[in-house]
Amino acid sequence: MLLDGALPERVSDHDGVPAMIEAFKSDTDGKKVNLGPGMYCDDDAKTWVLPAVAKARKILLTDPNFNHDVLPQLGYPDFVSVARQITFGDTLDTRTIVSMQTIAGTGANQFFAHFMSDALRPAKVYLADFYCFASSSQGFATGDIDNDGWAIRHFTKCANGKMEFAVAQSFSKNFGLYGERIGALHLVVDNRNIAARVEETLKRIARAEITSPPGFGAKIIATVMQTSALREQWQQDIKTMSSRLQNIRQRLYDELTKRSTPGNWGHFVTDVGISKHLSLGIC
Amino acid sequence: MLLDGALPERVSDHDGVPAMIEAFKSDTDGKKVNLGPGMYCDDDAKTWVLPAVAKARKILLTDPNFNHDVLPQLGYPDFVSVARQITFGDTLDTRTIVSMQTIAGTGANQFFAHFMSDALRPAKVYLADFYCFASSSQGFATGDIDNDGWAIRHFTKCANGKMEFAVAQSFSKNFGLYGERIGALHLVVDNRNIAARVEETLKRIARAEITSPPGFGAKIIATVMQTSALREQWQQDIKTMSSRLQNIRQRLYDELTKRSTPGNWGHFVTDVGISKHLSLGIC
Repeated sequence: MLLDGALPERVSDHDGVPAMIEAFKSDTDGKKVNLGPGMYCDDDAKTWVLPAVAKARKILLTDPNFNHDVLPQLGYPDFVSVARQITFGDTLDTRTIVSMQTIAGTGANQFFAHFMSDALRPAKVYLADFYCFASSSQGFATGDIDNDGWAIRHFTKCANGKMEFAVAQSFSKNFGLYGERIGALHLVVDNRNIAARVEETLKRIARAEITSPPGFGAKIIATVMQTSALREQWQQDIKTMSSRLQNIRQRLYDELTKRSTPGNWGHFVTDVGISKHLSLGIC
Repeated sequence: MLLDGALPERVSDHDGVPAMIEAFKSDTDGKKVNLGPGMYCDDDAKTWVLPAVAKARKILLTDPNFNHDVLPQLGYPDFVSVARQITFGDTLDTRTIVSMQTIAGTGANQFFAHFMSDALRPAKVYLADFYCFASSSQGFATGDIDNDGWAIRHFTKCANGKMEFAVAQSFSKNFGLYGERIGALHLVVDNRNIAARVEETLKRIARAEITSPPGFGAKIIATVMQTSALREQWQQDIKTMSSRLQNIRQRLYDELTKRSTPGNWGHFVTDVGISKHLSLGIC
């Protein structure tokens, strides 16, 4: 048979995070807690539908114009517009930036790697944080979108505003839309001539891999950001999540310290965000 | 600058269909009709939200358990189950079949090409209808899902039930969910040992390119197929679309014949489906 001789007897081990999610689901222990996947949960360890998202869902559902027409190759225009605004803030108009909607952060990274592979024809593409920012937690560090956007906005001004770089953006965490796979890729380039060629290359890549991205998550985010009451609700939801995470860190630090647990745990309260590197070494 | 020298001065011409959609949108002629893209429209030339889908949307969006948790790598299990049922019908239990949710038909084809490239390491991968069925219009030919599924189900029995092949399935047309990018890839294989290795390879590909597929379209379809009243509504919606298309073909044939238009137009009423090859030659 064709496939029998072609596939290796043992394929690579399960990828850590998805395998952990599946193992957790199968575990029957009543006290189980899953600390692996990067998904925000409430005090009952349940994932959270942001109130802003719940309200946007209702608006969409009752909108007689809510349809399922195919999106443009680069994505839902209103979504792409707000994604650019969230990322670049008041630096948006100071640089030439090509943006597209992607399948969350994974899709953004993958499209960027594909783009760089097409453009530069390297043997391999390594994605380093310096050239391609991975923006997956904007809002979780300080509870404020603009504060958290400082680093990316700073780089738009580097090298006299000439530095070229990319941003792979995910809205999985800060909109709680993990399963709708909503993200964006932004390429900050030198001039409009390059931008036109970059855009055509990205369209070709999108056409080959997905034709166009999915609509629902994009329309939710656009609805939130373009409705002032929902935008304020979302900013409140961001503060709710970031402050709860800070609170958990403080409580964990207090419990470890109270038990005189060997080790230095101060970094629990100096670090920020949804993840925590435990520095436990090999157990 | 890095990108300036790397990108070609002129990238390939716009892909035909998306470029046509954009040109149509920009055209200000009041009598414009877009015959290019493969999207079903009603008598007012508007795309149609299927009644079954509208009802499923309402169920989902008023369900307090409707969340946006990340899906498993191979997709929403209830959706994958109904996609298998729609494709294979009563042949489903006669073969070993590995299935996954994909970004519509484009994603299914692209994942299959990626899979075959990984498995066989060819110089290029050509997707031929013989080895990989493109199932994008099931229901449109005869108005009946099972009738239209005959060909694929027939091949499950070929070579004494040993033939290995793939199906790249799209629900863009038969659920009108073009913009939600909902499809599936099925690999019919010889035995469970191969199936396990195929599944691990597909998971690895999904993890690298998208992590997991989007939830909304999958949950719509699962809701429709698992609710008997909605399933009946959907079967009616399929008949509505396929019979309207037959009616249009007949009307077009009548108008061409009435005008004694040079040419042979009988194929208009003998062909079926959402597209029509006009055989006009080079104009």
